[in-house]
Amino acid sequence: MLPSHIIYPVPVARWEPNTKERLVRAALDLFTEQGYEATTVAEIAERAGGLSKMTFFRHFPDKREVLFAAGQEVHSQILATAIAAAPETATPLQVVALAVDALSATFTDDRREFAARLRTVVAAQRELQERAASKHLALAAAATEALQKRGVPELTASLAVELGIRAFDRAFDQWADPACRQSLADLTRRWLAELQAANAALG
Amino acid sequence: MLPSHIIYPVPVARWEPNTKERLVRAALDLFTEQGYEATTVAEIAERAGGLSKMTFFRHFPDKREVLFAAGQEVHSQILATAIAAAPETATPLQVVALAVDALSATFTDDRREFAARLRTVVAAQRELQERAASKHLALAAAATEALQKRGVPELTASLAVELGIRAFDRAFDQWADPACRQSLADLTRRWLAELQAANAALG
Repeated sequence: MLPSHIIYPVPVARWEPNTKERLVRAALDLFTEQGYEATTVAEIAERAGGLSKMTFFRHFPDKREVLFAAGQEVHSQILATAIAAAPETATPLQVVALAVDALSATFTDDRREFAARLRTVVAAQRELQERAASKHLALAAAATEALQKRGVPELTASLAVELGIRAFDRAFDQWADPACRQSLADLTRRWLAELQAANAALG
Repeated sequence: MLPSHIIYPVPVARWEPNTKERLVRAALDLFTEQGYEATTVAEIAERAGGLSKMTFFRHFPDKREVLFAAGQEVHSQILATAIAAAPETATPLQVVALAVDALSATFTDDRREFAARLRTVVAAQRELQERAASKHLALAAAATEALQKRGVPELTASLAVELGIRAFDRAFDQWADPACRQSLADLTRRWLAELQAANAALG
């Protein structure tokens, strides 16, 4: 099974195949089984295949970051790359649409079950919700900066990005329901269209 | 001197005059002098006039909340009340403008110096920045709910509120500069007009 939303496959050193991913999956398993508070870094490392705490801390600064660190970096990169690559004639909103398209395309449906569990764990813990909000801000900042590099004024860029990330978040929330049968990319496009219409109506 | 931004005078029991405010001011003093990490709850309580840790914990769940808890509650209330009281004919954006007007009017210029110190402390600490982001979300949720009670659809409400809170945040950041000579209310109105124009141009 592939990793999900917050988590994204990242290159790992040859001598430690998939350690990072194994830690993430072990953490989510333990958080689901016994709760976030009750789980220690040592337990996560052990569950990930008899690893040490030291190995854990080579990959993540603390227990909370195990669910966020890799995703934040990789998702920011996906957004920034797509924004830089968009056609020169695209409007800010069109550029953002392409960027969230690129991001949601990386979430294939075999990742839905993992995403659903992740959503449940995050929803149960204020500390994780705050980290999720801070990830939201970091993605928005990265995308806004990328748009500004195209010459879009900062205010316009930040508002266009806000619509895109809201569309992605709402779509993700629906998609991460095991009963959902739609693709994340389709849901994101639909939400972006709705948000755009509501926004235009604000005047 | 009066309390500031995040902090807002709240009713206190007669037998404990201003304990909450004294704790907040003592905390900000200590965070400024010796840093957030290095400051303990016991020190804050002591500095607030020889209070005990137990007294601190009667008012705040932890060290971090001392800068946020009271403000979040009172500011949410100010926004919700102003939204409910807005004229029936007002558009969602006009309602939001009245609400952020009511909020910024509570920050008189004698609170600027306190706000400036608060801004410096928060900017230096990731944990506090995350809490500030989470306060932003809580205010937005309260305001969105109040708008929905007026019959505004959720998507429209949340976008109108986002513009208002962004205007307030940007204005506050300028206002909390000791060199600033403008009122927070004026700055907020100006930012809201700019954000609205940028948003309308998105199409």
